[in-house]
Amino acid sequence: MSAPYISIPEGLPGIRGPLSLRPEVAKPLSALAEVVMRADHSLTRGERELIAGYVSYLNNCHFCDMAHSSVAQYYLQCSFDFISTVKSDFNKAEISDKLKTFLAIAGSVVKGGKHVTTEQVEKAKALGATDLEIHDVVLIAAMFCMFNRYTDGLNTWAPADPEFYKARAPQVARDGYTIKSH
Amino acid sequence: MSAPYISIPEGLPGIRGPLSLRPEVAKPLSALAEVVMRADHSLTRGERELIAGYVSYLNNCHFCDMAHSSVAQYYLQCSFDFISTVKSDFNKAEISDKLKTFLAIAGSVVKGGKHVTTEQVEKAKALGATDLEIHDVVLIAAMFCMFNRYTDGLNTWAPADPEFYKARAPQVARDGYTIKSH
Repeated sequence: MSAPYISIPEGLPGIRGPLSLRPEVAKPLSALAEVVMRADHSLTRGERELIAGYVSYLNNCHFCDMAHSSVAQYYLQCSFDFISTVKSDFNKAEISDKLKTFLAIAGSVVKGGKHVTTEQVEKAKALGATDLEIHDVVLIAAMFCMFNRYTDGLNTWAPADPEFYKARAPQVARDGYTIKSH
Repeated sequence: MSAPYISIPEGLPGIRGPLSLRPEVAKPLSALAEVVMRADHSLTRGERELIAGYVSYLNNCHFCDMAHSSVAQYYLQCSFDFISTVKSDFNKAEISDKLKTFLAIAGSVVKGGKHVTTEQVEKAKALGATDLEIHDVVLIAAMFCMFNRYTDGLNTWAPADPEFYKARAPQVARDGYTIKSH
């Protein structure tokens, strides 16, 4: 695999490398992830991580896909294969119709903000989605369009083996995304 | 124009509408914009705003394009037409070769992180670009891929007239992006 485009401390995978270079930036980025992905919300943490994994999968960002799919699996107490099935064809997966509408909206956000349609949003609302939920689905998808590009745009290193990410998931679920000290 | 997809207080254009609904989210997002776009850096504020405007233009996000192109114009003390020329074909514009390499990298980030090439980065470095500059160019581009999608994915309202944004630019340049109180 080719080297990262800038000097990054060895051994820090994915986004953690560039974040270590810019603590001033890492602080608001991690605070953002913490509040969007983990604060109290009617979307469960598992649902939010699943949306994050799905967006990262669509953006072909291996690090973020594996990392967030693993945390989703941990929260949702399902198999990693189930998460993979959702990502490859959520319409056929055994998830709620409401969650399917959220994944559809997230998929449109990946293509671009204007790809989200009135019909998609109306369908979600008809299934009980609140304004706050729709807001956060769009924000989560948009946020991972940033994280994916930041991670891959610098050509960061990421372990290929899904087991690496699955092993870290319980720790991420316990400690969250806040950076403790810099 | 169709209505925003969720209830947003009237009169708040673009991203300011949804941000007003979620102060917990607005805080880290505005802190991120403040440090990335305005903190001391070898990239001038004008250059950073130009990259932001260019990315927003490529993403077809009228609000962010107009807002950041206007602030870029204000800092760079050039005409709005000049900024438009840069956005439509930066290779022909009278800007430094180094800035052209940054805009090329930013344009690749818009397509997806993996579109950034070794050749693009090497060209920038040959013209004196530092690792920190390359890091921040990728981050700015990635960040606006988020802001653009957040703004348009909720179908927010934005004034069509560029004069609205040009009139606000001096205030944005003076006050920055930090949200004062919530």
